Amino acid sequence: MTVPVTQLTDKLLASYARVGGINHLDGKNMPSKLAIAMISENLLRLVYPGYFDTKSIYSSELKVETANLLDAVQERLEEEVYKSLQYATPERLQNQDKRSAARETSFDFLDQLPRLREVLQTDAEAAYAGDPAAMSKEEVIVAYPFMEAIAIQRMAHELYRHQIALIPRIMTEWAHSRTGMDLHPGATIGTHFFIDHGTGTVVGETCEIGNHVKVYHGVTLGARSTSGGQELRGVKRHPTIEDHVTIYPGVTILGGETVIGKRSTIGGNVFLMRSVPANSLVLYEAYDVKVMSKGDRLTKGAEIDYEI
Amino acid sequence: MTVPVTQLTDKLLASYARVGGINHLDGKNMPSKLAIAMISENLLRLVYPGYFDTKSIYSSELKVETANLLDAVQERLEEEVYKSLQYATPERLQNQDKRSAARETSFDFLDQLPRLREVLQTDAEAAYAGDPAAMSKEEVIVAYPFMEAIAIQRMAHELYRHQIALIPRIMTEWAHSRTGMDLHPGATIGTHFFIDHGTGTVVGETCEIGNHVKVYHGVTLGARSTSGGQELRGVKRHPTIEDHVTIYPGVTILGGETVIGKRSTIGGNVFLMRSVPANSLVLYEAYDVKVMSKGDRLTKGAEIDYEI
Amino acid sequence: MTVPVTQLTDKLLASYARVGGINHLDGKNMPSKLAIAMISENLLRLVYPGYFDTKSIYSSELKVETANLLDAVQERLEEEVYKSLQYATPERLQNQDKRSAARETSFDFLDQLPRLREVLQTDAEAAYAGDPAAMSKEEVIVAYPFMEAIAIQRMAHELYRHQIALIPRIMTEWAHSRTGMDLHPGATIGTHFFIDHGTGTVVGETCEIGNHVKVYHGVTLGARSTSGGQELRGVKRHPTIEDHVTIYPGVTILGGETVIGKRSTIGGNVFLMRSVPANSLVLYEAYDVKVMSKGDRLTKGAEIDYEI
Repeated sequence: MTVPVTQLTDKLLASYARVGGINHLDGKNMPSKLAIAMISENLLRLVYPGYFDTKSIYSSELKVETANLLDAVQERLEEEVYKSLQYATPERLQNQDKRSAARETSFDFLDQLPRLREVLQTDAEAAYAGDPAAMSKEEVIVAYPFMEAIAIQRMAHELYRHQIALIPRIMTEWAHSRTGMDLHPGATIGTHFFIDHGTGTVVGETCEIGNHVKVYHGVTLGARSTSGGQELRGVKRHPTIEDHVTIYPGVTILGGETVIGKRSTIGGNVFLMRSVPANSLVLYEAYDVKVMSKGDRLTKGAEIDYEI
Repeated sequence: MTVPVTQLTDKLLASYARVGGINHLDGKNMPSKLAIAMISENLLRLVYPGYFDTKSIYSSELKVETANLLDAVQERLEEEVYKSLQYATPERLQNQDKRSAARETSFDFLDQLPRLREVLQTDAEAAYAGDPAAMSKEEVIVAYPFMEAIAIQRMAHELYRHQIALIPRIMTEWAHSRTGMDLHPGATIGTHFFIDHGTGTVVGETCEIGNHVKVYHGVTLGARSTSGGQELRGVKRHPTIEDHVTIYPGVTILGGETVIGKRSTIGGNVFLMRSVPANSLVLYEAYDVKVMSKGDRLTKGAEIDYEI
Repeated sequence: MTVPVTQLTDKLLASYARVGGINHLDGKNMPSKLAIAMISENLLRLVYPGYFDTKSIYSSELKVETANLLDAVQERLEEEVYKSLQYATPERLQNQDKRSAARETSFDFLDQLPRLREVLQTDAEAAYAGDPAAMSKEEVIVAYPFMEAIAIQRMAHELYRHQIALIPRIMTEWAHSRTGMDLHPGATIGTHFFIDHGTGTVVGETCEIGNHVKVYHGVTLGARSTSGGQELRGVKRHPTIEDHVTIYPGVTILGGETVIGKRSTIGGNVFLMRSVPANSLVLYEAYDVKVMSKGDRLTKGAEIDYEI
C-alpha cells in the first residue's frame, strides 16, 4: 500500500525539474555554507588569538601557528571567492582572470586583519566600560556573543565592499545563527560600538552608525516594508545613528531618512520613523500606563480581558 | 572532606527515584532528539537539493543520490515514528499494528514532499520580492534562516496532522534553536509567506495565516496566559491573519478571536488583543513621543531618571 | 603583487603585540569554552537522565552510567575551576592550595545536583500547567528550550555563589547561544519559574525573582545604561519580581529599585522603570490605537508614511 522509494524518487526528481527556483544543481557551483563556516571560525581565531582555540597558544609557537592558520584560511577563502566570482562577477573584475582575482581578493582581505583588530579593540573597550556585569576584558571576549558578531560583520563588510556576492551574507548569517544578532555586511559601523545581550537586534544593509554607539538587544534599525522590494536595491533604506547615541531594548527605528542626532537616548520599546535632533530623549510616557487592582475592569475596550 | 563519587552517585540515584517527572528511563523509549535532528537536516537536503550539501550535486548523480537519501530518511523516520506511536497512539491507529503504521506514516509523509516544495517555492518568491537586500533567489535560500524555518514547519505540520506525538515539536524546536523562529507545527500557514530576519518571532499552535503575509522579527502571534493551561488544549487560542497583511517588528498580537483583516498593516511595537477590519493601519502615535533636550527633566514621573 | 603569507604573518604578530586587550596568550590559562560546553552537556544528562542521551538508558545500567558520568564531569570541572582560580582567586580562597580548592569546589557543586533537580521539577510542572500546547511533561523536557536554559542557569548560579570567575558566564552564554535566553548566573530565581518560547528574554545579574513567576519571550529584566559602568559593579541594578507575576512578550522593565508587586500582570510591549503595587494590571491603552482605512493619511506627523 505504501509508495515504494523508486516511485518517491521519480516524483521528487520531477518536482526538481518543474519547481526550479529552489534547486541548486550543476552549473554555478555556489560558495559552500560549510566551507564559509570553517573559514569564519578560523578568522575568529586569527583576530582573537587564544580565545577561540581548544588549547592554549604559547608565544613561542605563535609565529608558526599563525602562519599555518593564515595559509589554510587563504587557500579556502580563495576557493570560495573563486566560486562567488563565477556566480556573479563585479563590474570592476569583468576583464580579469577569475582565479587570479580570487587570489588577490583573499590576500587583500587578510591584509586588512591588523587594521580590523584595532577597531575590534575599541569595541571590547566599549563593552567593558558599558557593562557592570563584565568582570574583566577577558570575560568580554570569551563570553560576550557581541564580540563574535561584530568581528564577523566587520570582516564580511570588507568582502562586501569588494562586491563579492553571497559570501559576506553567509558569514553574517553564520554569526546570526550563533548569536541572534543580524548585522548586515553592508552596514557602516564606527568605533567603540557595543550591543549588550544582542538577541534579536537587526542592523540593516544601508545603516550608518557613528562612534561610541550603544545598542541593546531586540533593537531594529530597519527599512519600511515595500511591495516592490527589488526596485529599492542600492537606495538608502535604513537609519543613520550619530555618535554617542544609546538605544534601549525593543526599540524599532525605520527609514533611510531617519537620523538619530548625537548624544540622544531612545527609551525602551519606542517605535520611530522620523529624525530626532541631537541631545534628544525619546520615550513613551510610561507614567500614563494604567495600574489597576484585582477585580477592576477596563471600561473602554471590553474586548481586552486580562486575567490577573 | 569531599564527598566521594560513589556517594554522589547514590544521592543522585535516590533523587532519580524520588523526583520522577524529569527523568526518562526504561519504558517508553521516546523519539531521540539527535535522530530527529539528523532526519531534519536530510529533509532540508531533499527539499533544497544542492543548497544544504557540502559538495555540489550534479544532475547525472541526482537520481542515485536522491534515492539513497530517501531510503535513509525513510528508515530513520519510520523508527522514530514507531517510538512515538509506542509513546502515544492516536485514536485512528489504536487497532493497527504499530510497526506497519509507522512505516505507512513515513512513506505517506515523504510522498508529500513534492507538494510541499511547490509551496516553499512561493515562500522563496515572497522573500526575494519583499527584500531589497536580497541579491538573488539563490541568496535567499542559501542565506535566509527563514527558508529553513518554514521548510521544517511545513514538514512538521504534516506529521502534526497525522497526530504523531513529540516528533513535530522536536523538529520545530531544532529549527527554533538554529534560527530563533518558534513556528509551532500546529499553525496553518498559506502560500507566499515570509518572515524577514526572524529572530524572536513566535507563531502559536492554533494560528491561521492567509496567503501573501509578511512578518518581521520579534513578532508574537500568541495566546493569552491562563492559569489552568491544560484545560484549553485544542481550543483556538491564537490569532487569525488574513491575506496580504504586513506585521512590523516587535508586534504582539494575542487571542484566538483576534482577526487581522485583509491588506492591513500593523506598525512596529504595537500590542493588540482585538480584531481590526480589512485595510487597517494600526500604529502607536509615535508623533506624541516627547523629544527633550539635554538637561530637561520629566515633570510627571520623577522616578523616571534617564541618563542622556 | 599579492602580499605573501610570511609578510601577513609578521603584520598580524605585530598587531598581537601592539593591540593587547583582545589577545589571550600564555599566562593565565583561562577556562576553555569548549571544555565548558562539554561539561554543560553532561550536566544536562545528569539532571534529566534519559532525555539528552543518544541512546535509551535502562535502570539496570543506571548506576554504572551515572557513576561514570559523574567521574568524567568532576575531573573536567576540577580542571576548569583550577584554571579559573589561577585567573582570579576569590578572597575566601586566597590562602588555600588552588588545586585542592578546585577539587573541593567541583565536589561541592556536584553534591548540589539532587537539590537542584527538586527545583527543576517545579519548573517543569509550571511549564506543563502554563502551556496548553504542551502535550505531556515529557514533551516539556524534550522540546522546550526553557528547561535547558533554566537548568544551566541554576547550576551556573551555584558556581557564581562560590565566586568562581568566568565559568558561570561561559555556561549561561552556551545556553544563550542554543536557546536565545540570556539568564545571568547572578540572578536569584524562585521555584515554579517558566519562560515560554524564550527567544530574546534577558534576566540581569542582580534580578530577584519570586516563586510562580511566568515570563514570555522578548522580556527584559534589565539595568539602566550608564556611562561609568564599572563603578556599579555589585550594586543592585535589575528589578525585583514578586510571586505569581505574569510578564507578557516584549516587556522591558529596568532598574534596581523597580519592584513588580505580587500577582501583577504586565501586558505585552510595556516599558516600565518604576514599581507597581501588588495585584496590578499594567498595559498600554491599545484601544487608543488608530485604525485607518486604506487611502487615509495621518494628519499629524506627515513624516509617517506607511504603505498599506
